[in-house]
Amino acid sequence: MEKMLTNKDLLGLQETSKEDIELILDTADMMRHILDSPTKRTAHLAGKSVVLFFLENSTRTRLSFEMSCKYLSANSSNISASGSSIHKGENLYDTVKTIDVMATDLLVMRHNQSGAPHMIAPLVDASVINGGDGMNEHPTQALLDMMTIREHKGQLDGLRVAIAGDALHSRVVRSNIWGLSKMGAEVRVAAPPTMMPRHLDHMPCIVTHDVREACEDADVVMGLRVQLERQKSALFPSIREYAHFFGIDEEVLACAKEDAIIMHPGPCNHGVEMPTSIHEHERSVIHEQVSNGVAVRMAVLYLLQARRNYQ
Amino acid sequence: MEKMLTNKDLLGLQETSKEDIELILDTADMMRHILDSPTKRTAHLAGKSVVLFFLENSTRTRLSFEMSCKYLSANSSNISASGSSIHKGENLYDTVKTIDVMATDLLVMRHNQSGAPHMIAPLVDASVINGGDGMNEHPTQALLDMMTIREHKGQLDGLRVAIAGDALHSRVVRSNIWGLSKMGAEVRVAAPPTMMPRHLDHMPCIVTHDVREACEDADVVMGLRVQLERQKSALFPSIREYAHFFGIDEEVLACAKEDAIIMHPGPCNHGVEMPTSIHEHERSVIHEQVSNGVAVRMAVLYLLQARRNYQ
Amino acid sequence: MEKMLTNKDLLGLQETSKEDIELILDTADMMRHILDSPTKRTAHLAGKSVVLFFLENSTRTRLSFEMSCKYLSANSSNISASGSSIHKGENLYDTVKTIDVMATDLLVMRHNQSGAPHMIAPLVDASVINGGDGMNEHPTQALLDMMTIREHKGQLDGLRVAIAGDALHSRVVRSNIWGLSKMGAEVRVAAPPTMMPRHLDHMPCIVTHDVREACEDADVVMGLRVQLERQKSALFPSIREYAHFFGIDEEVLACAKEDAIIMHPGPCNHGVEMPTSIHEHERSVIHEQVSNGVAVRMAVLYLLQARRNYQ
Repeated sequence: MEKMLTNKDLLGLQETSKEDIELILDTADMMRHILDSPTKRTAHLAGKSVVLFFLENSTRTRLSFEMSCKYLSANSSNISASGSSIHKGENLYDTVKTIDVMATDLLVMRHNQSGAPHMIAPLVDASVINGGDGMNEHPTQALLDMMTIREHKGQLDGLRVAIAGDALHSRVVRSNIWGLSKMGAEVRVAAPPTMMPRHLDHMPCIVTHDVREACEDADVVMGLRVQLERQKSALFPSIREYAHFFGIDEEVLACAKEDAIIMHPGPCNHGVEMPTSIHEHERSVIHEQVSNGVAVRMAVLYLLQARRNYQ
Repeated sequence: MEKMLTNKDLLGLQETSKEDIELILDTADMMRHILDSPTKRTAHLAGKSVVLFFLENSTRTRLSFEMSCKYLSANSSNISASGSSIHKGENLYDTVKTIDVMATDLLVMRHNQSGAPHMIAPLVDASVINGGDGMNEHPTQALLDMMTIREHKGQLDGLRVAIAGDALHSRVVRSNIWGLSKMGAEVRVAAPPTMMPRHLDHMPCIVTHDVREACEDADVVMGLRVQLERQKSALFPSIREYAHFFGIDEEVLACAKEDAIIMHPGPCNHGVEMPTSIHEHERSVIHEQVSNGVAVRMAVLYLLQARRNYQ
Repeated sequence: MEKMLTNKDLLGLQETSKEDIELILDTADMMRHILDSPTKRTAHLAGKSVVLFFLENSTRTRLSFEMSCKYLSANSSNISASGSSIHKGENLYDTVKTIDVMATDLLVMRHNQSGAPHMIAPLVDASVINGGDGMNEHPTQALLDMMTIREHKGQLDGLRVAIAGDALHSRVVRSNIWGLSKMGAEVRVAAPPTMMPRHLDHMPCIVTHDVREACEDADVVMGLRVQLERQKSALFPSIREYAHFFGIDEEVLACAKEDAIIMHPGPCNHGVEMPTSIHEHERSVIHEQVSNGVAVRMAVLYLLQARRNYQ
């Protein structure tokens, strides 16, 4: 029998096993071939409905999921906060239940509250994919990061991955810590003291305030977006100082291995997390990350639906 | 020969015959089977274009139509007020004519002015479906209500349907009065004096200010959304008082038949029109209403297109 | 071998040869037949991805491209300014590169900065179609104008085309001057002095401030939209005066040939550029322009993809 995901939903990598992560990454490699073929279309999800329910602004994640749906021949429909009845004060459960009973198979959900998809998933028939919840997780982003690293480094086990930046507001860092550590990589997080959440001490990662230290002999150097729009108060004195102490420049890069790859979840604040010269560096795989994002999302949609078909 | 709808458009149930309503409900029952099958896809509207032109916010109605289109393999495109040129001051006729001449077959239209689709329909080649016009009609909502009632009660003829709430701002109540009365049901409307439009006296329904009186021996108890966003001035002293006098609670429900079903067009203001315990009551069919909404809209799209094909 | 477009992108008619314009117009005539057939669907772009990236409001152009995609079985996805991450301050190149690497084949782009698509096109793999850039060009609009004129007049060579109105803010006028003059038509532009850009003196057209003079013996009389929303300061004393001096009325129309056709890119400010009686005149081809817009866009999408397939 074909391998199958353990859970009905993909809520986070904290609750996803190593075997399931491997299954998704292997399937994503196959999806990559479809994307690289002249006709990027399969009938795997024909007649299935996917609703993309994004209550926070998004370009790349929403578009990536939408295109993934189309490459699999699924029906996809968008619901965003603007133009919907959410402003009428409709509660989340009612809205999601409404979507669910319209014969929806897969529900991709982005919400500004941590844990929102976890609350919703057990209450609906559709399989829920977390497209980012507050400051908690963004599992498909970490999966595409892992896919990209694996492509370049052959495996994840034994690698050293340095992640630098605003760890406080970043759901990307949390998903990557859970996922990468399960796959045997060492994750080092460097953030200013004001941007380092305390719970990171209890997560499988090494914490430092020195970006050079984090990058020492690293195989991967990843910048995190400074979520300027999510900050309620100033968490660093100035952008210039942030860039100086936590930005990834040639000097920081020199601490890492000679063949270390450069990553960023995007969109990058050029000159803050890294200068444009690093963003477009020959060892930068930032555009590949975006490209692999489509393959990873196709894999997740495909595998969750396969599990539904079997039941 | 197969049965066919009388009119080119579906503008309201006031102008729809009993026979046409029955045809839509019977067709919706068949569409229900498609929705319940593993592959929810038919080719009935392949190569046909549906434009969803919503000038008021909407989640469920817009999504319901969009998914209906996709289950029938129609091409559907969204136009909403935000992001369109409507803000440039384009007049309605010009906008709709523009949509029409792009080879559009079916035009679903929501507008905040009562009668807008009635004005437009004779001027365009596309078949127009009223997705809600001001305080006038919302025919597909009433049709899905009727489908749901018929499913539970076997027929509509001879039933007593109590509708409680803000009848003044509700297009749902008007479409239900026209539709249900044509099908032989008795409709009773209970609303506060300030929310009871005078023209209801001339419509085929029984009017009262006492929600318990309306629910006496009723087969169906339906709450109406308090359209807080459409009220220009306060029409009731407080939400608490409204809930007390016009909300549907266990006590009100006890006036109705023992097997009376509970309905609401959604989204519900919990604690206003009814408490959550009634909304999620074992006799509540509110989620079924949403689900049947897709089947009804598939039926309407299919039947209007069938009529076009024949001509 | 089949004929093929010279360039990877369609950025403007200034850089498009007469032969390429003819190829697009001939292909559009064939697409017209598909649109007029009962099933408006071809598989020409099945498995291809088109992203509609509109950073300015648009109803008709966006919808026209979207429906064109669907008639060709392409996957189309919308990105607009609202609801996207553009507000996060993402730079244009990063956004477009993101779209590009998601296996996008064709990118339709509207931007408020003149030259934005010209900057982007060489940097991406996707073929870029300019859907309107600032005050520079709107090539598919001019192509649909030319298609409509050719339909009515048989050919473009030797025709006299009068264009009246706000030439300063109009990208439509610029694309039409480049396109029509290449096809051998004489273009005359009439605008108030404050709305006449100086660079028009160096373009292949005749400039005047007298709309009657421009229309003398004209085969085509085209009004331009007064871009009230783009004007930073008042460029004419009053709408009434504008309508009087530059509006197209029966008197102006009488200067043109007896069988002159009336055009407008829409949406029209009724009573400003022309009264409703001219807009709906028996010689008005305004609705045909919209309809032909779909055929022209299908042709452009088809031809650019054909060029990609060949490489």
